[in-house]
Amino acid sequence: MSKKAVILLSGGLDSATVLGIASNEGYDCFAMTINYQQRHHAELAAADNIANFFNIKEHKVVNIDLSWLKSSSLTNEKMDIPETASEGIPSTYVPARNTIMMTLAMAWAETIKSQDIFIGVNAVDYSGYPDCRPEYIASFQKMANLATKTAIEGRKIKIHTPLINLSKSEIICIGKKSNIDYSSTVSCYQADQDGRACGKCDSCRLRKEGFKQANIKDPTQYIISA
Amino acid sequence: MSKKAVILLSGGLDSATVLGIASNEGYDCFAMTINYQQRHHAELAAADNIANFFNIKEHKVVNIDLSWLKSSSLTNEKMDIPETASEGIPSTYVPARNTIMMTLAMAWAETIKSQDIFIGVNAVDYSGYPDCRPEYIASFQKMANLATKTAIEGRKIKIHTPLINLSKSEIICIGKKSNIDYSSTVSCYQADQDGRACGKCDSCRLRKEGFKQANIKDPTQYIISA
Repeated sequence: MSKKAVILLSGGLDSATVLGIASNEGYDCFAMTINYQQRHHAELAAADNIANFFNIKEHKVVNIDLSWLKSSSLTNEKMDIPETASEGIPSTYVPARNTIMMTLAMAWAETIKSQDIFIGVNAVDYSGYPDCRPEYIASFQKMANLATKTAIEGRKIKIHTPLINLSKSEIICIGKKSNIDYSSTVSCYQADQDGRACGKCDSCRLRKEGFKQANIKDPTQYIISA
Repeated sequence: MSKKAVILLSGGLDSATVLGIASNEGYDCFAMTINYQQRHHAELAAADNIANFFNIKEHKVVNIDLSWLKSSSLTNEKMDIPETASEGIPSTYVPARNTIMMTLAMAWAETIKSQDIFIGVNAVDYSGYPDCRPEYIASFQKMANLATKTAIEGRKIKIHTPLINLSKSEIICIGKKSNIDYSSTVSCYQADQDGRACGKCDSCRLRKEGFKQANIKDPTQYIISA
């Protein structure tokens, strides 16, 4: 019997690659997408495309309105997405986002009798978010192993972060080997409704640089040539 | 300037008492109620009543549909609520519920610049849920202090659990000193739409026993005399 895994799938480049990795490792994949009323709705359609590309068991979309998190430019449409690199944690940081997502994944994992959760966090080419760091992930895993019936029953929960120490170009190279069509992923924080990217935000900059360094043609459709 | 605190308010006896404690300690109280499509909707109306009783700054209700957690009798209406005490963790256990709630409280706390989160978990007169144990709460707090910008900026997050080591009767005695009207709280897992309690479920049993031991008249309205 194959092992089941819950894979957090945002619709971006990283999580698509993680789904490819989990699938290649032989897991029965249950993809979870969190619709938190993020301004870049296009990534939800992208998640659907990616889920369809892989032969997964189920794709669950969980709706939670986080628009009351007024401090983040991803959940507060009145704020502008920064288009230049900045010092410190950028305004695109959503408080507790990865904890919310991994917690919902943990709840689903318990329900389907899975002990394996995959998330595409990355601590190399990233935006300085506190909840992408290895020490945070390790701490979440410890907490998960006290929080649940799964743990009480002696079955350990593992948070898999296969991308955490990779550069964006390394991630892209791995994904290409799984034949992931990156043109159907959306990384941009302010993509238009057709999923075309701005080419200017932090996420676009990291992605663009990744393709360049990997020496792979960037398939992203940009709104403006940049 | 007073300190702000986020208080998780379910509408039950315990969380009402916790709101009283935080209020007495001089915190500016921001109450958060999670509507997760629980079958006992009456507790949401109760939360509203309790929030109105105390002079709180804001009462936020966050909607998240957890009806896909089919293993719990609180989120799966096709399952019966157990009416006799059982060995082990009962079916009313909702996977990851306290982690989901505390994580949302953590997100809100960061947004309003608060470092204090109150939750009415109890490890004495409780139902054996793993996420009510002191070691779980300690572990969540450690995780929270790695997950957020608040922590990165050197401000520590504290999870307050003033009831964790108290018996139900001790909790009731404390609440009475804050003049909490327990008739407006709903603990029952299958209360009717008017908030009347079944008198049979685990939560009713613990509450009933608490009033008895405290030698305080039980103001709960029961559907049947039990």
